[in-house]
Amino acid sequence: MSWVTTCDIDNKEAPLVRAVIMHAPRDIRVEDVPDPTILEPTDAVIRVTATCICGSDLWPYRGIENLTGPTQMGHEYIGVVEQIGDDVRDIRVGDHVVGSFVASDNTCEICLAGYQSRCVHSVMMGGVGTQSQYARIPLADGTLVKVPGEPTAAQARSLLAASDVLGTGWFAAVAAEAGPGKTVAVVGDGAVGLLAILAANRLGAERIIAISRHADRQALARRFGATDIVEERGSEGVAKVKELTGGYGAHSTIEAVGTQESMMQAIHSTRPGGHIGYVGVAHEVELNGMELFFSGVHLHGGPAPVRRFLPELVELIMTDQIDPGEVFDLTLPLDDAAEGYRAMDERRAIKVLLTP
Amino acid sequence: MSWVTTCDIDNKEAPLVRAVIMHAPRDIRVEDVPDPTILEPTDAVIRVTATCICGSDLWPYRGIENLTGPTQMGHEYIGVVEQIGDDVRDIRVGDHVVGSFVASDNTCEICLAGYQSRCVHSVMMGGVGTQSQYARIPLADGTLVKVPGEPTAAQARSLLAASDVLGTGWFAAVAAEAGPGKTVAVVGDGAVGLLAILAANRLGAERIIAISRHADRQALARRFGATDIVEERGSEGVAKVKELTGGYGAHSTIEAVGTQESMMQAIHSTRPGGHIGYVGVAHEVELNGMELFFSGVHLHGGPAPVRRFLPELVELIMTDQIDPGEVFDLTLPLDDAAEGYRAMDERRAIKVLLTP
Repeated sequence: MSWVTTCDIDNKEAPLVRAVIMHAPRDIRVEDVPDPTILEPTDAVIRVTATCICGSDLWPYRGIENLTGPTQMGHEYIGVVEQIGDDVRDIRVGDHVVGSFVASDNTCEICLAGYQSRCVHSVMMGGVGTQSQYARIPLADGTLVKVPGEPTAAQARSLLAASDVLGTGWFAAVAAEAGPGKTVAVVGDGAVGLLAILAANRLGAERIIAISRHADRQALARRFGATDIVEERGSEGVAKVKELTGGYGAHSTIEAVGTQESMMQAIHSTRPGGHIGYVGVAHEVELNGMELFFSGVHLHGGPAPVRRFLPELVELIMTDQIDPGEVFDLTLPLDDAAEGYRAMDERRAIKVLLTP
Repeated sequence: MSWVTTCDIDNKEAPLVRAVIMHAPRDIRVEDVPDPTILEPTDAVIRVTATCICGSDLWPYRGIENLTGPTQMGHEYIGVVEQIGDDVRDIRVGDHVVGSFVASDNTCEICLAGYQSRCVHSVMMGGVGTQSQYARIPLADGTLVKVPGEPTAAQARSLLAASDVLGTGWFAAVAAEAGPGKTVAVVGDGAVGLLAILAANRLGAERIIAISRHADRQALARRFGATDIVEERGSEGVAKVKELTGGYGAHSTIEAVGTQESMMQAIHSTRPGGHIGYVGVAHEVELNGMELFFSGVHLHGGPAPVRRFLPELVELIMTDQIDPGEVFDLTLPLDDAAEGYRAMDERRAIKVLLTP
């Protein structure tokens, strides 16, 4: 299963808009693609006001995930509604909106239980491609959350973060049961890991251990609420977390990388009975049953049901209670997307915002 | 990691008692071993009034787990206290007691959080060996629960079930968050799976799907509260559970086998956001990270912290509200243990009680 799917970019009849296309690993081009149109009566088309590059976009960029052909990229977005289908009731033309990286009806039994990322009618937005000037949003009423009023530039940046990295970090913190009295360890200092720190802090965690070896990310981690920094990885990192937690391990651990090493570091850093929220897309990870059994941890994760948290996150952002947009440390025009991918790949940037 | 450890059976100076020794796969003998004595001031010695053979004892019996030498078997027990060490305060000579298969101090931070099976001072009772006339119980105050009064024969049988299979099934049901409004699927129709049905029923589950192809076990499953029976295994079994749950899968799934097939059946039978409680000791199980990620389930299990539930279970049993002892469908004298192992191995018996 991939976050991105190949799309038809050979239809030359429709008006054209600019969009980011990955042709092959490390081959990013910004090209003209057909202007998105309403295909289903539940669709909306938005003018994308900001989009960004995700850590998960680096998997195919690095050739770890296979592309089946030229692929329109992107699944994070904020924008203004340009058109709506005949069955759209709650979203109106002109609304400022944010949605998650999975379109969902928000009415099925799975959505109602808070797992909109696994909606029975879910559409992965990576298959739509939002690193573009315009995007078609399926199931607009279920997917999009209206932003009250007009966001400031800082709020817009934070709303864009809510679309995936904040929502995913928030889910990870909730899945890890971060809260009062808890010590939370965070494996991964990318945008998701950093925003999971912000989330754990908002959820009332007593102590938050950021695992990071980069001074700039450590500084942001502290600004978001980290109380301790561990620079070591693997078994040394585990030993440090144990040392900071009376030998027991963390109550709650957030895994935001998706490698075998990071998953094992998370499992080993957690006390028996503790909770792990894992949101790194697990690549080539195999969990040994016996080891997991004797760890005694709770394990929960997967594609974050960001939609569950969006109304609350929009409220926190539009009342300036949180500023998750700080994770964007590089802003580029959409046409410079290739440089954005390079900067994230080389870890020169935590998270790159693209302005269409 | 093994449930059993080799013990010293060559000390011929102490008085001798009868105990079950596994010499090699399928080689069970009942032999004389030294009478257990107080080794630590926190120990008690009990006269074992009933013990039993566990599904997990079949792993070394079948050669799937390696023995390092002749091994005294057994980790389930009820009995009467014969001796106590100088530091034992709460347990007295003459008390009828039951304990779990893990000795625990019940005072450390992990115990207080309800994970006594991972107590920082835990002692696996499989390393002590309770298929014997007498047994040394480490950390007696933390491990043993006093039974109020003298149990009847039926109550004694049920208390013995509480020592592991009932406590483990109960934990599995709690880990799977079985409760009102939930549909619970149970993979595994051994004693633990059957008693997980009893537990899910007591916890208020709306619907309980037992996966079993044996008429006698199906009957017991229904008696314990199963509302539906699925006979199919693997993907056919998954399809049946989905069919019974509107296509979504169970809210809660209990895994009580410990094989790759049973774990995957459990994961695939559970809806996104659902909960799996797994208590089968996972042998040669590897969970693919990507598959687990996209399943969106909660996974929790491991060696059950039976001690957490024992006070409640003793109360339910001694007031005749539950009769988990029904899982014992064969009772033999301790000296006939070899036949008991054979009967369980060949699935002629669900659970074998041994009377020392």
